[in-house]
Amino acid sequence: MNVESFFPENIKTPLKNDPPGEWMPTLPDKCIRLSSGFPAPTLVPVEQLKAAVISLLEEEQDLPLHYVGSPKVAKLKEQIQEMLLEYNIRVSGDELLITSGACQAIDLVARILIDDSTIIVIEAPTYMEALEVFQNYTKHFISIPIDEHGLQTKVLEEVLEERKKKGLTLPRLLYTIPTFQNPTGTTMSTERRKHVMKLAANYNFLILEDDAYRELFFDKPSIPLKAMEREGRVLYVGSLSKVVTTGMRIGWVAATPEFITALAWFKKDLGHPFAQATMASFLENTDMETRLNFLRDTYKAKCEVLISALERYLPKSVSWYIPEGGYFVWLNIAGVDTSQLLTEALSEGVSYVPGEYFFLNRQDGKEFLRLSFSYANQQDIVEGIQKLGNVIK
Amino acid sequence: MNVESFFPENIKTPLKNDPPGEWMPTLPDKCIRLSSGFPAPTLVPVEQLKAAVISLLEEEQDLPLHYVGSPKVAKLKEQIQEMLLEYNIRVSGDELLITSGACQAIDLVARILIDDSTIIVIEAPTYMEALEVFQNYTKHFISIPIDEHGLQTKVLEEVLEERKKKGLTLPRLLYTIPTFQNPTGTTMSTERRKHVMKLAANYNFLILEDDAYRELFFDKPSIPLKAMEREGRVLYVGSLSKVVTTGMRIGWVAATPEFITALAWFKKDLGHPFAQATMASFLENTDMETRLNFLRDTYKAKCEVLISALERYLPKSVSWYIPEGGYFVWLNIAGVDTSQLLTEALSEGVSYVPGEYFFLNRQDGKEFLRLSFSYANQQDIVEGIQKLGNVIK
Repeated sequence: MNVESFFPENIKTPLKNDPPGEWMPTLPDKCIRLSSGFPAPTLVPVEQLKAAVISLLEEEQDLPLHYVGSPKVAKLKEQIQEMLLEYNIRVSGDELLITSGACQAIDLVARILIDDSTIIVIEAPTYMEALEVFQNYTKHFISIPIDEHGLQTKVLEEVLEERKKKGLTLPRLLYTIPTFQNPTGTTMSTERRKHVMKLAANYNFLILEDDAYRELFFDKPSIPLKAMEREGRVLYVGSLSKVVTTGMRIGWVAATPEFITALAWFKKDLGHPFAQATMASFLENTDMETRLNFLRDTYKAKCEVLISALERYLPKSVSWYIPEGGYFVWLNIAGVDTSQLLTEALSEGVSYVPGEYFFLNRQDGKEFLRLSFSYANQQDIVEGIQKLGNVIK
Repeated sequence: MNVESFFPENIKTPLKNDPPGEWMPTLPDKCIRLSSGFPAPTLVPVEQLKAAVISLLEEEQDLPLHYVGSPKVAKLKEQIQEMLLEYNIRVSGDELLITSGACQAIDLVARILIDDSTIIVIEAPTYMEALEVFQNYTKHFISIPIDEHGLQTKVLEEVLEERKKKGLTLPRLLYTIPTFQNPTGTTMSTERRKHVMKLAANYNFLILEDDAYRELFFDKPSIPLKAMEREGRVLYVGSLSKVVTTGMRIGWVAATPEFITALAWFKKDLGHPFAQATMASFLENTDMETRLNFLRDTYKAKCEVLISALERYLPKSVSWYIPEGGYFVWLNIAGVDTSQLLTEALSEGVSYVPGEYFFLNRQDGKEFLRLSFSYANQQDIVEGIQKLGNVIK
């Protein structure tokens, strides 16, 4: 039996790409993990989540263990609506869909908006999982470079104007992480935010705003694109992964009701009542403002330690952006192939993610790498950067 | 802004169908739920699941709360492999993908096998969620009727032979629930199982075998199609929803590695480590054989009570199949529109699912309805059927 003969054309093409998620070798034991983009063990509220499950099951008994019927599942939606209000995003119940993390949200948006003729605009570099998702739907991409102020909207405007003049198809969607971007850690300036919204209206495209890191600002929050518009061009994706736990997979899309209806239509996992109800129970019993402030202080301190260590231990040829929040610092190491360097770094005992995985054209990322200060503790961060310095020299 | 203008053609068509999942009105309070296809509150192991979470978090701490790293997630895969072995389905790790319930499994199979030109064969009637999933990908269906011995494979053969003679495209996939089918409760005979496997080989199609109810046999299990072949034509879907809990969304696909690779490629929710690890912890601490026997006895007794009540309270014009396991009894009420009757039944205090939702051509289901004996207790079942009898008369 020839398995491949059963696959339709639209899945054969993606299957020819590199396998998804295989960007990192297994890390050796005791490796200092500056590659891991998830919270340190001490930052996961294990005991509180355990208490949330116990209290949920005492209160609701079997209800969250069926497909439907748990009041806490409905509660979670209200809680997320309230959180969004803090950022001036006002959505009704039919403008919000809870998903299995931000990644499923991105996949569903791709499902309803992208077919194999769709052009989408991405940031270069961008979140690798999103890149994989989009490549499952189309091969038509426009990559626009990032600098320390985020997406270079002037470059985007030039590209759009050029296409318009030539009568070429215009993109349908821009995917952006304007705040504490993955992998660069940069934040789009207010001026560029206004500019990109103007471009969306002028060239009639939608914006998929991925705001997974927004709560983790060091000093002040920024204004989401979603809060700057009323027309409905922004599909806003968020997540509780970075501030509570990645393991329960709670994310969402906020968008106009027509989009939410379509997204829900193609979401065929029948929801996750137990995880959602547990999260609602956790949020009910947690002072989130205190928790968020603790996380912000912790990550800010870790980031400062990382930046100091970079200044101290890395050669002058290495440069980086200073993040204002989030998890990541993006390094440019002139003349070094970071994928090749990784083997050496791992044997020295430190990991990072090579830059190539964040670009559609991998070649563009050869001299970059992503460091995360989310997982390792302060002491390990310093030691890790020291090791990285040794390897680069 | 015109939202619809952003949707590609391949999603516009499904969006014109009736909205998914809207087959039932809200049930009035105190309604006897013969519509609900999920377990009674008393059959959900609430305390044991609570204990599973507590023991998991004590043992693994933060590990199941990250994207990766929980040993219990790996353990669950082994546990499911062992369960499948009981039914002579021997799969290696790369032949098994854990999904968010059987429904996500079906959606992923559709994702990798169906495009808008694909023809698929379905049973008439069939599982309504699956019907919705498939309609998101294609509009080319061949419906083959079910009788008390399951799918009428002779009819299927005639259709296939006819198409072959005429030089028409042959179907790529058959979706079947051979054991305790939803909604008819019927089980495909051994003879027909052999026949359908022969047809698959002769006419070169794949089989999506949905075996969500298989553990709930009253007297003896049947042999899955997957256990009857080595060629890899069967993609085998199962679930722990019916025997543990629907709320944690644990299902799977067992298939040859090429299919599993493709399915995993398009599964973009990044897994559900907390739910999977909790399930593994539950299975480690539960004598599943004892639990399964208890469930089998319970459902068998409830089914017998239901059948007796049907014989006693329903008019002679009503007929049904006697199930050998599962959740459902399928009623044929000659001359009655069951969708219209539902309003009356609900005001009398009993619910069921009208037959029309289980057919591609809804008209075909007008005189049928699905009863479930999974949720209501024995006393309520009798009372519910009495009420149904009153309404029909």
